[in-house]
Amino acid sequence: MRQRTRLDTVRIRAAREVIDPVFLDTPLYRCPALEPVLGCAVSVKLETANPVRSFKGRGTEVIASRLAGGGSRAVVCASAGNLGQALAWSGRGRGLDVTVVASRFAPAAKLDRIRALGARLELVDGDFDTARERAAAIARHGGVRLVEDSLDLETCEGAATIGLELVDGPGGAPPPFDAVLVALGGGAMATGVGHVVKALAPGVEVICVQPLGAPAMTYSWRRRQVVTTDTTDTIADGVAGRCPIPAVLDDLLVVADDAVLVREESITAGMRLLLHHAGLVVEPSAALGVAAVLEDRDRFAGRHVVTIVCGSNVDVDAYHRWVGAAPAGQV
Amino acid sequence: MRQRTRLDTVRIRAAREVIDPVFLDTPLYRCPALEPVLGCAVSVKLETANPVRSFKGRGTEVIASRLAGGGSRAVVCASAGNLGQALAWSGRGRGLDVTVVASRFAPAAKLDRIRALGARLELVDGDFDTARERAAAIARHGGVRLVEDSLDLETCEGAATIGLELVDGPGGAPPPFDAVLVALGGGAMATGVGHVVKALAPGVEVICVQPLGAPAMTYSWRRRQVVTTDTTDTIADGVAGRCPIPAVLDDLLVVADDAVLVREESITAGMRLLLHHAGLVVEPSAALGVAAVLEDRDRFAGRHVVTIVCGSNVDVDAYHRWVGAAPAGQV
Repeated sequence: MRQRTRLDTVRIRAAREVIDPVFLDTPLYRCPALEPVLGCAVSVKLETANPVRSFKGRGTEVIASRLAGGGSRAVVCASAGNLGQALAWSGRGRGLDVTVVASRFAPAAKLDRIRALGARLELVDGDFDTARERAAAIARHGGVRLVEDSLDLETCEGAATIGLELVDGPGGAPPPFDAVLVALGGGAMATGVGHVVKALAPGVEVICVQPLGAPAMTYSWRRRQVVTTDTTDTIADGVAGRCPIPAVLDDLLVVADDAVLVREESITAGMRLLLHHAGLVVEPSAALGVAAVLEDRDRFAGRHVVTIVCGSNVDVDAYHRWVGAAPAGQV
Repeated sequence: MRQRTRLDTVRIRAAREVIDPVFLDTPLYRCPALEPVLGCAVSVKLETANPVRSFKGRGTEVIASRLAGGGSRAVVCASAGNLGQALAWSGRGRGLDVTVVASRFAPAAKLDRIRALGARLELVDGDFDTARERAAAIARHGGVRLVEDSLDLETCEGAATIGLELVDGPGGAPPPFDAVLVALGGGAMATGVGHVVKALAPGVEVICVQPLGAPAMTYSWRRRQVVTTDTTDTIADGVAGRCPIPAVLDDLLVVADDAVLVREESITAGMRLLLHHAGLVVEPSAALGVAAVLEDRDRFAGRHVVTIVCGSNVDVDAYHRWVGAAPAGQV
């Protein structure tokens, strides 16, 4: 890479050593039944087959292991739902006192599981960025460690271990794919995976995908400066932020080859395709990669893409509504 | 083990070496959200995150690698749908000429994927055991290698590698669970996994689970002699056989601690639980383990069970019918 990010491949390799193996070496495989529909070769990197059903455990393991090693016992984070579950899981195993702040409009399934995993859950009457402010206040007043997704390097390094698994082929062979599609929200996964890909397999294109209804980071990337939005309007709750973090944007500017926006109907079409042709239940954020292919088939025709299926935490009723929208037989 | 099976742990370890890594080291993880519902600790061994969406690739890799090594180029099998897909996948990569015989009543999704993977598909007007006879006739007349699921040791050895992954804990530690729930059909998976578990972790209970509507192997195990049935009546198409193979029964008698039968409504309830609480799409055969817990909660209360989620190939419309049967909010 010509420019540096805050990340370092040696530290990312070290992060792997403290992550519980249940989150590592996740399946990476071709989905032949998806390929005729999408017009390109498609591999899935599946981050949902673990106790918290998302990739976030990679980062919270790094955080919790360092906290436990340092003697600190209390931690607070804001979460759209997945980070909170993961921090609760990682903290429970190490005797940490975990507080999660979330929007009361987050999916009930995510909120229920945060509680079930033993964390204290505080709900705010606002969105994810409101929760971030409240978590910061709790940390300030209580002297508690604040975990800030995407800003804290551990969250990026944890996510970056996905990148190692993508590009560390057998015998140092180059990866068989030529583009990685990464969901873009706060940016931990995009910068983490992007850093590793650009460092170790620079010929592979790193394409970030965000919903048109929550475009702040994509607009920021395009204008090369932070752009905030007043609201978000998307079913992809996991990536619905309004206020990009400047340091994360700086990293994204170094590692992302492109950032694209997709429509809500492409996201639900992507969820439906992954269910019908790959047998995968995914949350909306995890369908962004497939949505990007659907919206720009020419760009990907005949290529080999990897899409990171980053979470499967959905409210069942909403899920059935989204994937059941098309008549039987249609995608 | 006091008695011997046809299997051998050294050969099973050798089988791992010829299986494409995409089928190996599959996720094994606790599903905390399932546990309050089932009243016991539950781990899932997920065999669906691969290009053929079932565990059968493990066995067909062993078969195809040996065939390719030996110079033979043609192979035929009968299949309920999953073996055929897997053999097509393994054969395609090695230039083999694959014929699959299946019932025309097998799920359309399975049949479509067998064709899509490049195999010749022949349909019979009968069930799986009719397809077995036809495949044997093709092999006899054409001088083609016949693959017989569960009878051919490669199919059992391939499935047995799942067992190695269950019991080969870090540092030789004993597995954290005390019972393995295995779907029982022809018996390759039950005898393969059972052999390894009884050889390496004999304290772990091996419980085979079959539908009440296709009970031939379970009846045979209970009476210690082959019992056939005239018909089957179950949605669990992957395990619906009428004619147990004597040699496989002999092995099952050595390695199974129990064989239980479950009702159809328990199978659909299991599929629904796995969807709603674990985010997993499974075919009916893959829900047999959860169904067994649902039917005998007292037996499993407070214990730690592993259930092998062995396949996810379903017809989408049938799947929606099965899992959508309960009103929203119910399991």
